[in-house]
Amino acid sequence: MVTTLQRESEGSVHQKSALPKADIALAGSLFDLLRDATADGEGVTRESYGPGENAAHAIVREAAESAGLETAVDAAGNLYMTLPGLDRSAPRILIGSHLDSVRCGGNFDGAAGVLAGLSAIAGLAQNNHEPPQDITVMGIRAEESMWFSANYIGSRAALGLLSSEEIAGVRRTDSGRTIAEHMQDCGLDPDAVIAEPPYLRPNSLAAYYEVHIEQGPVLEERAIPVGVVTDIRGNFRCREARCIGEYGHCGTVPRSLRRDAVAAVSELVSRTDDLWDELENQGQDLAVTFGVVATDVTHSAASKVAGEARFTVDVRSKSPVTLSAVRKRLDVFIADIEQRRGVQFWLGPCSETPPAAMDERLRARLMEAAAGLDVAVLEMPSGAGHDALVFAGLGVPAAMLFIRNAHGSHNPHEAMAMDDFSQAASVLTASLVSNVK
Amino acid sequence: MVTTLQRESEGSVHQKSALPKADIALAGSLFDLLRDATADGEGVTRESYGPGENAAHAIVREAAESAGLETAVDAAGNLYMTLPGLDRSAPRILIGSHLDSVRCGGNFDGAAGVLAGLSAIAGLAQNNHEPPQDITVMGIRAEESMWFSANYIGSRAALGLLSSEEIAGVRRTDSGRTIAEHMQDCGLDPDAVIAEPPYLRPNSLAAYYEVHIEQGPVLEERAIPVGVVTDIRGNFRCREARCIGEYGHCGTVPRSLRRDAVAAVSELVSRTDDLWDELENQGQDLAVTFGVVATDVTHSAASKVAGEARFTVDVRSKSPVTLSAVRKRLDVFIADIEQRRGVQFWLGPCSETPPAAMDERLRARLMEAAAGLDVAVLEMPSGAGHDALVFAGLGVPAAMLFIRNAHGSHNPHEAMAMDDFSQAASVLTASLVSNVK
Repeated sequence: MVTTLQRESEGSVHQKSALPKADIALAGSLFDLLRDATADGEGVTRESYGPGENAAHAIVREAAESAGLETAVDAAGNLYMTLPGLDRSAPRILIGSHLDSVRCGGNFDGAAGVLAGLSAIAGLAQNNHEPPQDITVMGIRAEESMWFSANYIGSRAALGLLSSEEIAGVRRTDSGRTIAEHMQDCGLDPDAVIAEPPYLRPNSLAAYYEVHIEQGPVLEERAIPVGVVTDIRGNFRCREARCIGEYGHCGTVPRSLRRDAVAAVSELVSRTDDLWDELENQGQDLAVTFGVVATDVTHSAASKVAGEARFTVDVRSKSPVTLSAVRKRLDVFIADIEQRRGVQFWLGPCSETPPAAMDERLRARLMEAAAGLDVAVLEMPSGAGHDALVFAGLGVPAAMLFIRNAHGSHNPHEAMAMDDFSQAASVLTASLVSNVK
Repeated sequence: MVTTLQRESEGSVHQKSALPKADIALAGSLFDLLRDATADGEGVTRESYGPGENAAHAIVREAAESAGLETAVDAAGNLYMTLPGLDRSAPRILIGSHLDSVRCGGNFDGAAGVLAGLSAIAGLAQNNHEPPQDITVMGIRAEESMWFSANYIGSRAALGLLSSEEIAGVRRTDSGRTIAEHMQDCGLDPDAVIAEPPYLRPNSLAAYYEVHIEQGPVLEERAIPVGVVTDIRGNFRCREARCIGEYGHCGTVPRSLRRDAVAAVSELVSRTDDLWDELENQGQDLAVTFGVVATDVTHSAASKVAGEARFTVDVRSKSPVTLSAVRKRLDVFIADIEQRRGVQFWLGPCSETPPAAMDERLRARLMEAAAGLDVAVLEMPSGAGHDALVFAGLGVPAAMLFIRNAHGSHNPHEAMAMDDFSQAASVLTASLVSNVK
């Protein structure tokens, strides 16, 4: 089913000017297979621990085996595809990304990183490269946060960071069933995720690379194909925030007696937006998003003062100081609005992810590799979170490449050119080879 | 099924100090019957042109017939209960209110007005009063705007103001079926509503009275049992407004490129709220309500800039000048927000109802009647719209009484004391008798 793994011969003598090349044709055929297997009519859907993600793992695993790579799957269902090194016990190089997608998402968010890694090590294998240590591409489970209100489930499971409470308690937003139940559906053993030693240990990892399409418009606007990430923004996110007021007739409750949840949440959104403006003008890195705001479907009406509104808030920055300052200001805004408007806010459970700086040495290696290949790159922060955050948080040297992409991510209109993918994969491959030299 | 219509004899000689009394016991038993027949587990539900409203009409009609009143039903299903006058062709006095309720509403909104009228004319009938002209109590259909996005369906149908487009095109918000289809379910002939001459002509109406529970907290706060309405606020209402932006990743789209529908709607709500504050401080009568705000259930997420939000806006005032001024300012706010935030607003179809002043002569008669009975009353505007607006709009002299009510209306916790109801019904009855003298 996977199309030819043959490519034009590079010759057998490795010169600096004749680096092994990534197998872009392999990646191209796998993108097609993934799209066909997980099309939902509009985009693609690869639910975390669901049929779409399973199909993606099966396709990629079969291709890796056909390419002669070693494959393994851990208790949490993460896929490992390894080009063996000369010293199999030396700390390995890991290249990771996820294979799930949002509902009605695009074909590239997540998958591009796995296929960039796979095309790199398949290219090395075809050139009979024997790296000093293992190079492993990891197909990570359950990265997309729309499915479960827990972050980085797959990578945290692999590193022993996923708790039994999360596995047994966090439910998928569409099915209402737990992580454990969905793992079982996939033929996995959730008890083993807790009981067995972590599949990955930080001190057995020499480096972690992750390639991802850019989810914003910066590379597109600047006409640069590849980004080298400097920092990954941290964030705090409250997904179940609510404001409780009191329902009342729109024409009969005097202004002074109203407890209007819509007016209260709107004021919070507007004041936080003003704060963002203020901090950005001071040069601070920040993004504030109230992505969901909704009055109650059953009880709200055009003729009623809203007695309740739920909302989400996501605040991101590469600076922990800015994150903390915004959190405090939110509390000040809320206390003031509660007092003046007679409402009560509940932010609910909020997740926090600290920002992470990418490893200076790995960044420099990627920049040198790009320069050697004449690939134009832009150094830029990552506004989105990635599994790289989890590895960096445990002290593993981590680096990321972005691929130019129009129309953002998490939608069927993601538009990554294969030529840009090829340039990123080439930079990654060259970086791996420079590593083994 | 209706309990006794007998009451203590008032004697047969009518002196000024022995006015005929409203039959409060009849009203009390009917409130119980209505609640029992339309209970929904939490409150009552009497859907416009549905089983709950039909049940209420049947109960009230049977009671009126048992009380010896003439009954009739028009093509649109409105119920008429008449105490015949000496001159049957003279313009009649109409006492109207509606018998539908919101979903999970209270027992008194609407029904209290019909039962106040019925207890008044039943009391007159028991005292063998023969008024100079007919006095008719009208049980009006389909007043509650939550069911159909058309205002005052029953009273406008009776007066020939309901269009064939509305009957054939406006759909009930829960069922998705048209007014015509729901009328047919009730055994009515929607074609006749258009084809037949209007059941009521404005020049055949000497006066229109409407009794209603107060839907705000004013009488409760002032400890006064009865209100005499001075004006009914008009309003404009847009139930299907939307703001369209563009979905984007919460961490990756720079602030300057965002097209955030939630930030845009929040700014509109906040600026309109500020405008309300400003105009109220200038002494203008106003109420502004954004009762529903909702991002799209499928496409919105905590991790996405919102690409769409729908909302409702309701603006009320007793001044047409204020209404018009706010409408213009909304347009200014919207144009400014669209330009700065890269979004587009669509207010959609907006209904407009002009304010109406209550008739001076009828108000004076109600005030005199209250004074004669030592009932404390407060003159006050009505923030909510009522069928009285439709009659007043056609030049029929109209007046309204409010009954003190805790906890607002449109909820199961409406709390009207029967003693307050009795005082309002007594004022109405005395006003009718003074009219016939």
